[in-house]
Amino acid sequence: MKASPLVNFSRLCVHTITTKGWELEEAIDRYAEAGVCGITVWRQWLEGRNQAVAGARIRSAGLEVVSLCRGGFYPALKEKSRVEAIEDNQRAIEDAAALGAPLVVLVCGAVPGQSLVESRKQITDGIAATLPLAESLGIKLAIEPLHPMYADDRSAINTLASANDVCDELDHPLVGIAYDVYHLWWDPELEVQTRRTAEGNRIFAYHVCDWMTPTTDLLNDRGLMGEGCIDLRGIRGMVEASGFDGMIEVEVFSNRWWEKPRQEFLQSIKQSYLNYT
Amino acid sequence: MKASPLVNFSRLCVHTITTKGWELEEAIDRYAEAGVCGITVWRQWLEGRNQAVAGARIRSAGLEVVSLCRGGFYPALKEKSRVEAIEDNQRAIEDAAALGAPLVVLVCGAVPGQSLVESRKQITDGIAATLPLAESLGIKLAIEPLHPMYADDRSAINTLASANDVCDELDHPLVGIAYDVYHLWWDPELEVQTRRTAEGNRIFAYHVCDWMTPTTDLLNDRGLMGEGCIDLRGIRGMVEASGFDGMIEVEVFSNRWWEKPRQEFLQSIKQSYLNYT
Repeated sequence: MKASPLVNFSRLCVHTITTKGWELEEAIDRYAEAGVCGITVWRQWLEGRNQAVAGARIRSAGLEVVSLCRGGFYPALKEKSRVEAIEDNQRAIEDAAALGAPLVVLVCGAVPGQSLVESRKQITDGIAATLPLAESLGIKLAIEPLHPMYADDRSAINTLASANDVCDELDHPLVGIAYDVYHLWWDPELEVQTRRTAEGNRIFAYHVCDWMTPTTDLLNDRGLMGEGCIDLRGIRGMVEASGFDGMIEVEVFSNRWWEKPRQEFLQSIKQSYLNYT
Repeated sequence: MKASPLVNFSRLCVHTITTKGWELEEAIDRYAEAGVCGITVWRQWLEGRNQAVAGARIRSAGLEVVSLCRGGFYPALKEKSRVEAIEDNQRAIEDAAALGAPLVVLVCGAVPGQSLVESRKQITDGIAATLPLAESLGIKLAIEPLHPMYADDRSAINTLASANDVCDELDHPLVGIAYDVYHLWWDPELEVQTRRTAEGNRIFAYHVCDWMTPTTDLLNDRGLMGEGCIDLRGIRGMVEASGFDGMIEVEVFSNRWWEKPRQEFLQSIKQSYLNYT
């Protein structure tokens, strides 16, 4: 069943990368002015900043810190690199705790030429290695399945089924899924696998944008909701039926939108959120 | 189990689009000189030609006509357009018969904004509508599952599982699968679904190339075998274990290769065929 239209901005979250060009402080101010209620902070936006101060500023502007984006990239050919990846993920978990973000989004990684089965094993082991720290700090870890066009070097987890499998294997309340419509919309198993997330309320985060026809760039040609072919209300209906009622995060990588004035873009995000999401 | 290296060119087939820039006659001559044993003819290469004459010329050069590429594109919003698509597919089947090609490859189609479930139904119905003609002319129809990055407007059949499902539904000895490593390599279900093709020897065609990192164009940045990350011998091992022993078709869309001298490219294809396929 399709979801009902959203009628206010109480669940609207924007990723700092969506409004690339605004530093963290300006993003906070502009989002708050516009009535956006949540912010997902990309790690680059914290560089040279004290995370606790950044978190306090976000909250004092009336915004919720939804996620820290992103950890992951566990697989590597050499063990030394895998250990370094785990250490980097531990830093991300600590940063999330200092910022006051409940969640780290994981882009899990892949190595061209290494089998995806081996990479998935390294991902599972890598997440497991960070769980003690995540537990001690109370930080959730959200596996983001990426579109199969990123299976070469960004993620060996390319379907909701694979993400569910890793969650089953780790079987831990702090391990769940960041569900991004851009990566998942095409999957014939989507309804079945979304239902499978219900047990344990496994969807920790929900990311929206749209798929453009034609898509002219593998990374930075995402559409704003309603510009493309994704059945956004159909998918939100499935996600909400599985128990998710959290923030709806606008994550748009788009050279086309990044060229426009950011204030105008933010207004378009709000319209598109109400009209199409 | 990985396949053994190929030691001669008895199974090497090249798609006319791979050596774009050569007209049909030149492609025939160059392939034959180079010891290539098969040719898959794209329909554009038959424009303005008598198909029977073209077929005779191919055979007299000692080449096998492996497939006619391509029919499909069944789904459409309007019934009139769906009827026209069926008529076009009937022409493709007649062209294949006149050319002496045993097979038409189907790029099945999709319509941005129409549900993939509905498009898959229209694809199944479209193929069914052409089966009487295919039967009367003895032409096989090979569903080519396309990579999920083409789910918006090229094909609603994006996994081997979906192709197997349509084959099961139509349950006809002339309906099978064109298995292209570029579209399928990433799929965690690949081994299971390849095994599923064994019943009925459902793999009618096998297409090879490679996935480049980074991929800079969604259509025309394929690699030659060995240039990318696809486990070509692992996949060929699975495909052959399922009963396939036919031609191995090199289908490379690449702006990079198309800029090079075609004779040099043809030699690189042969080397890459022996060394990596």
